Amino acid sequence: MRLIFLSSLLLSLVAADLFTAIADLEHMLGAEKGVANVIDDYIVAEQKRLNDLRKYAEEYTSRNLHAENVGPEFVTNPINAYLLIKRLTTEWKKVENIMLNNRAEGFIKNITETRSKSLVKFPGEDDLSGAAVALLRLQDTYKLDTADLSNGIIGGEKVSNKLNGHDTFEVGRAAYNQKDYYHCLMWMQVALNKIENENPKSVEESEILEYLAYSLYQQGNVRRALALTKRLAKISPNHPRAKGNVKWYEDMLQGKDM
Amino acid sequence: MRLIFLSSLLLSLVAADLFTAIADLEHMLGAEKGVANVIDDYIVAEQKRLNDLRKYAEEYTSRNLHAENVGPEFVTNPINAYLLIKRLTTEWKKVENIMLNNRAEGFIKNITETRSKSLVKFPGEDDLSGAAVALLRLQDTYKLDTADLSNGIIGGEKVSNKLNGHDTFEVGRAAYNQKDYYHCLMWMQVALNKIENENPKSVEESEILEYLAYSLYQQGNVRRALALTKRLAKISPNHPRAKGNVKWYEDMLQGKDM
Repeated sequence: MRLIFLSSLLLSLVAADLFTAIADLEHMLGAEKGVANVIDDYIVAEQKRLNDLRKYAEEYTSRNLHAENVGPEFVTNPINAYLLIKRLTTEWKKVENIMLNNRAEGFIKNITETRSKSLVKFPGEDDLSGAAVALLRLQDTYKLDTADLSNGIIGGEKVSNKLNGHDTFEVGRAAYNQKDYYHCLMWMQVALNKIENENPKSVEESEILEYLAYSLYQQGNVRRALALTKRLAKISPNHPRAKGNVKWYEDMLQGKDM
Repeated sequence: MRLIFLSSLLLSLVAADLFTAIADLEHMLGAEKGVANVIDDYIVAEQKRLNDLRKYAEEYTSRNLHAENVGPEFVTNPINAYLLIKRLTTEWKKVENIMLNNRAEGFIKNITETRSKSLVKFPGEDDLSGAAVALLRLQDTYKLDTADLSNGIIGGEKVSNKLNGHDTFEVGRAAYNQKDYYHCLMWMQVALNKIENENPKSVEESEILEYLAYSLYQQGNVRRALALTKRLAKISPNHPRAKGNVKWYEDMLQGKDM
């Protein structure tokens, strides 16, 4: 019973926000099935390229070993001299070409073309922030806990996959772009907690800290904004704004004019 | 005894042709030891890149499978909708970047810099043809058999590694560039025999055939030049010169003016 209620709740909420987009999303799901195959094909092609290269490396090694065994007079033999020079000119060019011959562009073109043929408008940055804002509205309307929602839990029920650190960070960024520092702060805090257990981390801690500090400042918590910015300056010594921001927050706490 | 004679013979011949180059060649041999390691490091870096990509492909597959199991209402859940759109935008960009991020240029720069630091002048095309011409002089002076010489055999003794089809072809090309069609013809014929047993072939048959046919013509064997050019036109239907050359040789055999 409760699940049915939830489903229709979700449906109506999404329908309001993304009505025309739902059919598109369903089509996209089908179209995306091909992407994994294209990536797999690309990996097979690249493995072949690396195997060719490995053969050359083995040839280099075995020839050098032979030359060492023969000793310094190896190169006084004109056939050896010719083969050594050829290895260093023509064959090195071949190795370079194999190293540079990453076939990614062809495969990416293949995927791009499949998508453009599929008659579905593929989503862009705007659609992403739209979908994030839809989540924020859902949260607001039903007073949902940020950590729960980011773990795919609504009303105590698991209704979807969980968001990783970067997924969560992007929702926070959508809030930030709407000057909604209240939600930004909550989502960035959850993102920070999530990346603690990630390896590799789906988003850099420094990226989260800058948004989190600014949202704390906007919500009036300058002292904590300063503490986080100091941490940012420490873990990211070359950060273009961290040191300046530390001073800015320090001046603010000392009541100086800005 | 015989081997000692051969060695001093080879040494004196090469000394005449490549005197200053021998010290360089010895240095190169040492420097080239690093190349195989750089190629190996590159392969390791590329394997890591492909493994990252494989993880993404697996995620694509498992997420799609999950969506299929849920059914069409999958995308009416706003968390799913957000995650799907994110996968199609931000994450697809990541996959593209990994696919395009071939690190070959850095590794090649590394090898180039190691070479330029090694204080040895690395050989170019001129040095390669010089070394090939040295082989031709050796052959001429001592009336050596082309097939034997190309197999590293001098005076019945195996004195070096054998040349592959492309190595042999390049010696023929050096003869051609000196308008020495007599030697070009012999070396191209041996190259043609060698690639018969090669897989993959170190040089295309069509490349050999054009030089071979022209050298036969220069040596007065127009009939065989025509036969080989017909074969070239057959195996390489889009060859830029083959059809024109067939007509040229045919006209010549019919005694027409050209």
